[in-house]
Amino acid sequence: MPISPEELTTQLHGEIPLTRALGVRVQAWDGQRMKLWAPLAPNLNPTDTAFGGAISSMGILAGYCLLLLLLRERGISTRILIQTTTCEFLRPVDEDFSADAACPEGAVMEEFLATLQRKRRARAELLSEVHCRGMLAARHRGLYVAILF
Amino acid sequence: MPISPEELTTQLHGEIPLTRALGVRVQAWDGQRMKLWAPLAPNLNPTDTAFGGAISSMGILAGYCLLLLLLRERGISTRILIQTTTCEFLRPVDEDFSADAACPEGAVMEEFLATLQRKRRARAELLSEVHCRGMLAARHRGLYVAILF
Repeated sequence: MPISPEELTTQLHGEIPLTRALGVRVQAWDGQRMKLWAPLAPNLNPTDTAFGGAISSMGILAGYCLLLLLLRERGISTRILIQTTTCEFLRPVDEDFSADAACPEGAVMEEFLATLQRKRRARAELLSEVHCRGMLAARHRGLYVAILF
Repeated sequence: MPISPEELTTQLHGEIPLTRALGVRVQAWDGQRMKLWAPLAPNLNPTDTAFGGAISSMGILAGYCLLLLLLRERGISTRILIQTTTCEFLRPVDEDFSADAACPEGAVMEEFLATLQRKRRARAELLSEVHCRGMLAARHRGLYVAILF
C-alpha cells in the first residue's frame, strides 16, 4: 500500500528537523507527482515575503520526496544526496505556498533505474515548481544522487 | 560604529524566523568579509549530515548579510531580494559549519553602487563558501537585487 501524505509528513518531520520549522506538509502523492505545502508565517523575510532559503528548501524537498517514494515503491532502498541545487525566484511569495515535482518521463526513469542497478549509484535531475496564489513563483532544479544500500 | 556580530545575529533572528531554527550566528564581520556559523544538530538530514536546504540557506544568508552591511555602512537603505541561487555540494557536512562571503572587488563594487544610485536598483553576484572541519564543503552563488527605499 502506498504511503499516505500524513505518514510521509511525519517521517520528514522526524528525519529532517528543519522541515518542522518550515511547517512543510506533504499534500499529495499519486505515484507520479509529489506536492508539498508550507505556511508563509514561519518562512518570512524582512520584506514580508518568504525567505529565499525556505523556498529553495521546499524545491529541494519536493524532488527528494519524489525520488524517495519512486524508489521505495519499487522496493529499492537507497541513500539520496543532493549534488547541486538551482532556484530562480520569479515572483514574491506573499501567501502560503506549494512545491511540486513530477516523475521524469518514462525513458529517463528507466535509464536511471538501470544505471542504479548496474553501478549501485545513479543521478537524476528533477525539476520542481513553487506556486503561490495559483501563480508560478519559483523554479527549482536539483541534481540528486541515489546510492544503493 | 559598525554593528557587532551579536547585534546582527539578533536582527536576523527577529526578521527571518527560520534563522532561529537553523541556529545561525554571525561569527565575524570586518567591513569586508561576513562569516556565519551554524550547529549541525538542528540541520540534520536522514544520513546524519546537514540537509542541503540548510546549507543552501547559509550560503544565501552569508551573501545577504554581506550586502546588507556593505550598504548600511555607506548609509544606503535598500530592500534586498534574491533572484537566483545555485549551490554545489562538494563534501558531506558532518559537523558544525560556517558560511562566508567576501566583498566584491573594488571596481565591481563601485559599478554596483553607481548603478544603484542611477537606476535605484542594482544587481550583485555574490559568492559564498561553506566550510566544515576546515574543508570546503559547498560553494554558493547568489544573484541579489538591491532596491533603494
